[in-house]
Amino acid sequence: MAGNTFGQLFRITTFGESHGVAIGVILDGCPAQLPIDVDFIQSELDKRKPGQSKITTQRKESDTVQILSGTFEGKSTGTPIAMLIPNEDQRSKDYSHNTDVYRPSHADYTYDAKYGIRDYRGGGRSSARETAARVAAGAIAKLLLKHYGIEIFAHVSAVGKIQAPNLSGDSITELLVTREENIVRCADPATANQMIDFIDGIRKDGDTVGGKINCIIRNCPVGLGEPVFDKLHADLGKAMLSINAVHGFEYGSGFEGSEMRGSAHNDIFLANEGAPKTLTNFSGGIQGGISNGMEISFSVAFKPVATIMHNQQTINAAGEAAEIKGKGRHDPCVVPRAVVIVEAMAALVLADHLLRNKTSKID
Amino acid sequence: MAGNTFGQLFRITTFGESHGVAIGVILDGCPAQLPIDVDFIQSELDKRKPGQSKITTQRKESDTVQILSGTFEGKSTGTPIAMLIPNEDQRSKDYSHNTDVYRPSHADYTYDAKYGIRDYRGGGRSSARETAARVAAGAIAKLLLKHYGIEIFAHVSAVGKIQAPNLSGDSITELLVTREENIVRCADPATANQMIDFIDGIRKDGDTVGGKINCIIRNCPVGLGEPVFDKLHADLGKAMLSINAVHGFEYGSGFEGSEMRGSAHNDIFLANEGAPKTLTNFSGGIQGGISNGMEISFSVAFKPVATIMHNQQTINAAGEAAEIKGKGRHDPCVVPRAVVIVEAMAALVLADHLLRNKTSKID
Amino acid sequence: MAGNTFGQLFRITTFGESHGVAIGVILDGCPAQLPIDVDFIQSELDKRKPGQSKITTQRKESDTVQILSGTFEGKSTGTPIAMLIPNEDQRSKDYSHNTDVYRPSHADYTYDAKYGIRDYRGGGRSSARETAARVAAGAIAKLLLKHYGIEIFAHVSAVGKIQAPNLSGDSITELLVTREENIVRCADPATANQMIDFIDGIRKDGDTVGGKINCIIRNCPVGLGEPVFDKLHADLGKAMLSINAVHGFEYGSGFEGSEMRGSAHNDIFLANEGAPKTLTNFSGGIQGGISNGMEISFSVAFKPVATIMHNQQTINAAGEAAEIKGKGRHDPCVVPRAVVIVEAMAALVLADHLLRNKTSKID
Amino acid sequence: MAGNTFGQLFRITTFGESHGVAIGVILDGCPAQLPIDVDFIQSELDKRKPGQSKITTQRKESDTVQILSGTFEGKSTGTPIAMLIPNEDQRSKDYSHNTDVYRPSHADYTYDAKYGIRDYRGGGRSSARETAARVAAGAIAKLLLKHYGIEIFAHVSAVGKIQAPNLSGDSITELLVTREENIVRCADPATANQMIDFIDGIRKDGDTVGGKINCIIRNCPVGLGEPVFDKLHADLGKAMLSINAVHGFEYGSGFEGSEMRGSAHNDIFLANEGAPKTLTNFSGGIQGGISNGMEISFSVAFKPVATIMHNQQTINAAGEAAEIKGKGRHDPCVVPRAVVIVEAMAALVLADHLLRNKTSKID
Repeated sequence: MAGNTFGQLFRITTFGESHGVAIGVILDGCPAQLPIDVDFIQSELDKRKPGQSKITTQRKESDTVQILSGTFEGKSTGTPIAMLIPNEDQRSKDYSHNTDVYRPSHADYTYDAKYGIRDYRGGGRSSARETAARVAAGAIAKLLLKHYGIEIFAHVSAVGKIQAPNLSGDSITELLVTREENIVRCADPATANQMIDFIDGIRKDGDTVGGKINCIIRNCPVGLGEPVFDKLHADLGKAMLSINAVHGFEYGSGFEGSEMRGSAHNDIFLANEGAPKTLTNFSGGIQGGISNGMEISFSVAFKPVATIMHNQQTINAAGEAAEIKGKGRHDPCVVPRAVVIVEAMAALVLADHLLRNKTSKID
Repeated sequence: MAGNTFGQLFRITTFGESHGVAIGVILDGCPAQLPIDVDFIQSELDKRKPGQSKITTQRKESDTVQILSGTFEGKSTGTPIAMLIPNEDQRSKDYSHNTDVYRPSHADYTYDAKYGIRDYRGGGRSSARETAARVAAGAIAKLLLKHYGIEIFAHVSAVGKIQAPNLSGDSITELLVTREENIVRCADPATANQMIDFIDGIRKDGDTVGGKINCIIRNCPVGLGEPVFDKLHADLGKAMLSINAVHGFEYGSGFEGSEMRGSAHNDIFLANEGAPKTLTNFSGGIQGGISNGMEISFSVAFKPVATIMHNQQTINAAGEAAEIKGKGRHDPCVVPRAVVIVEAMAALVLADHLLRNKTSKID
Repeated sequence: MAGNTFGQLFRITTFGESHGVAIGVILDGCPAQLPIDVDFIQSELDKRKPGQSKITTQRKESDTVQILSGTFEGKSTGTPIAMLIPNEDQRSKDYSHNTDVYRPSHADYTYDAKYGIRDYRGGGRSSARETAARVAAGAIAKLLLKHYGIEIFAHVSAVGKIQAPNLSGDSITELLVTREENIVRCADPATANQMIDFIDGIRKDGDTVGGKINCIIRNCPVGLGEPVFDKLHADLGKAMLSINAVHGFEYGSGFEGSEMRGSAHNDIFLANEGAPKTLTNFSGGIQGGISNGMEISFSVAFKPVATIMHNQQTINAAGEAAEIKGKGRHDPCVVPRAVVIVEAMAALVLADHLLRNKTSKID
Repeated sequence: MAGNTFGQLFRITTFGESHGVAIGVILDGCPAQLPIDVDFIQSELDKRKPGQSKITTQRKESDTVQILSGTFEGKSTGTPIAMLIPNEDQRSKDYSHNTDVYRPSHADYTYDAKYGIRDYRGGGRSSARETAARVAAGAIAKLLLKHYGIEIFAHVSAVGKIQAPNLSGDSITELLVTREENIVRCADPATANQMIDFIDGIRKDGDTVGGKINCIIRNCPVGLGEPVFDKLHADLGKAMLSINAVHGFEYGSGFEGSEMRGSAHNDIFLANEGAPKTLTNFSGGIQGGISNGMEISFSVAFKPVATIMHNQQTINAAGEAAEIKGKGRHDPCVVPRAVVIVEAMAALVLADHLLRNKTSKID
């Protein structure tokens, strides 16, 4: 049973290989009558596309999205929304040397072992290019969330050991402006400068480095998340871990919370009108797997990109020693382009649970 | 859409509240002809049950499992296996004070907000008692994995800031023996003693503390995991995050890997016969979301138990200030009993992907 | 991938063999706060249980249902509702002769071939006893539908070649009274008498006979059904065809409609206020797979029960000739007891689509 | 929850409106290494496309399929296969009169009521044009079945009251030749001529007529079908009922079987070597929901096409009386073009169950 579908009620299925004709996505379950702003979808894709700055790959793809179905006169119709992103820069010859050789810490070997056949051009299906399809669908999820007043914001919180301070209390509009003013997409300008210098040095070394992305969600209604397996943070975690290069996920107090005592960790409810607030938010906006109305926050760890500009020892499909030459056009650090992917996947999870929650009680 | 089902082909649905008649599980999709060792299932449940030692809750539940269907003459028949665990120690009066008051960092408020009705007795559905059903089903998953030679082992790798050293190269049989010789279920005896003393002190303070569990999987066949969303580690992550009190998941190099350079992080393939091995294993046995035959390893972070023996300020359902009295019978640290839950969920994920992989190519 | 689950949002999973410990069902997705009338559930089961009259099997089972979870103080809580029906009359010795012999037109051979192991006692999982679990869950579906004003009614419309006239315009309350006044459950008393005499004669011959059940649904809201695959009638059809012994399904004009001309078959809309009505209803209340507010009607064909009181030639598991002795306690005609199964499955489909429709457009 | 996905392991999701940019399908779960014969896929589409003969609509669409992903060097790779069929003949002005008026026995009203918005051009999503996507995916399913030796054949068994005799014992290759020699696609040449004359007369009247399609499957392995809900015939039934205009489904003895006695209906096993055969086949090749190795046979009833060349009274969206003018280009009888749709859906069901059965027992 293949695994190219994500979500239950707001459900996407992606398709496409890095150097095939096109990649794309079908979104099934988008409620009817939602205004579909194609410019917004494109602007989201532009944040993920290659060639944006000196610290991203210099490969050129316009990543222009085309909507094939599911909208009419600018609105969703309740039928499947298919979106296509043609592949333009297909220089397959660049990849001919990969035909038979397994790149270290890539998916070449495992795809070959699993399927017995592999589109080796540019990583084929295992390429992070697939995430463009997610970003397109995630943009529509964001439009749905926006309709309900829910806001999502992610930024680069760490590159290597360089950590950004915690997010300020600025509005998400303000945070977005600050973030987009630097090419590393960190909401703290001073840290951003350090990160950019560091990545640029790494790039000149022909090396790569990992990083972290922190994401917050505000104005999430109380009640999203479905016990016991489809807890909101469990679905967020799966969504993040399904992104290429992600090795870790934590929410609320996360790994640090495992070192704390209950007396310090408990989030005390404050007596007041309206939905309850808590004094602290170690729960990260989710209790018992269900959103409690507080800010949701989580962090995602990305390993360093496996493609480096050094020669590396490896093996070929026959198990014989071989060498990988360092060449090509790749990102020295994936997190600046992954910010919008994290937001897209979070938006897809939220949209799905927003719809799922509509049947939690009789009306 | 409710969320009480986990898995696609090896699929469980659990039911039951902490103080209802019984909890239980239906396992649908277990292949026929698998010998079902009921004693083994019970022995797994015994590792999770309350009242095992001075550092677990003193509540008494024998957690005796009864198989209602799906087996015949000691083997699975391919039909649904239903298992029932009656609730014995139902002292509901202990919980009458919870009727109307929201316990901090519990699910009382969110269940009430989501459903508008709540079985408040002992946490109802949100109680970790539900995980006994997972352990019963996970035991059958382990029997299936054993049939295919796959081994799973988890242990307590941290309590508060006390960290165990990395797992040795001992066999899993040896590791199990060592682990079960101490009540905290850590595979390092010296660390185990520190952990036990620390938890006992916490308990005497009426407080609780978090911890971490590390899990390894050996002899996993190459090819498990379904790109692009149902990557093996994504499903493991969701499985772990669906366990009560879990706040974080990482695999392979995890969060530390996000600080590394690609040149150090890449796992170099070694030329040899048979399935390729790698010099290092920062990939944690999974590349491109697919198992590569190396040891799979991941860690899970648990927050401290929310129920403490101190009085706490909180609110009631009307939003008014209220006080929670510290009383009852609860765990000072959840990880010793959670080891078998982590193993059970990992086994369920592996069993599911083992079956899913059977259709990856034509035969 | 096993197939013991039905429905998407209002979802049941059944378990249990004819002569095992118990059969049962988990219903996941029932909205919270629905009053759960256990007496009503039991009364539905009583309409399906054996031993009701001279024209049903004389086997004795009280089919007493026990709710294990998911309700609190008489209402659903939004968590899984598990229901158990213990097996009482397990005389397994009656079936020892089936160990190795394949009964004609039963599932003995196919289960053996598929799974390589078979609980031969009374048909095991393939026994229609499993449908008691469906009736229990269907009763809760009916309670949900009733909350929304939707009414379902089925009756025996044919036994052998004896056909009942089309249903009158009586209210469903009136139809139910008329139907329950005769043991064959036909809404036309005169036809009922003919049917009963005919079945009684068949029974005395040691033979069996097939029949048909017609079902109508009134006050169904406009909009249920999900194009393009989960059309309302497609899901109704699958539900009916999943019932033991069903060989055919038709809705609206059905097979006769295939002989008609479009000019006669088209249902002309009538200009009026409120939801449009049509002059005729060859569409059977469903257009484009979506309910249109008119009465939904469909018919289900049941083959004759395969167990007859005659000796029959057959084979054993080795492929050798063998003989089946005609003995045991079986129904001469299954339709009187199947009426409530048809209603239950229809109710499950409607409940599922009622919930699914809640996300069709933004609000 | 939308319903544009069909199948579990061999799973398709279709998209597209009649007069949008394109229609298409993603097939997820096709096993790797299957040779993908694009010419065969196109030849299947050619059997469904409009404008084939005097008894089909004169609309012109080449229905040229393009594969976007999932194949490499002529074989499936185990990744999603996306196929696109551009819409060419989009004369939307033809349909402007439908903007606000509900055509009788079409889906105009129900789509409007369900979604509150409707692509009215040519029926939009409710157009049978969507089935071209199914035929493309079904062609790949047929290639998979062919790999395993399974054969599917359907033909027009009735037009109005004109019934073809039962299928002969000819090979499927022979039956296909005979069928394709006439434009109505009936395997009996004499009946075909009657049908063609009849349809041509209907067409000249500006009217339409219904019909039936019979389908057989040979060399189906024993064991396909998943009790209790996903019985093979239940999934076949749902597949057929999801096709536009289908009002009925029966398999094996079907509706006639409901009039028979058990003593006549039981299929007696014949003692012989190899897989058991039965003397008769009223079971239609399926027992207990599982294929038994005998020929599978079922029939599908299609209502007459709703679009007729007569003026008809109807209403508009405001509920006011309106008139539909008879014009446009439509089929007088849908069954000749639907034969390949029936085969495609049957192939999709078989392929899905073939994969599902791979996990029925341990190996």
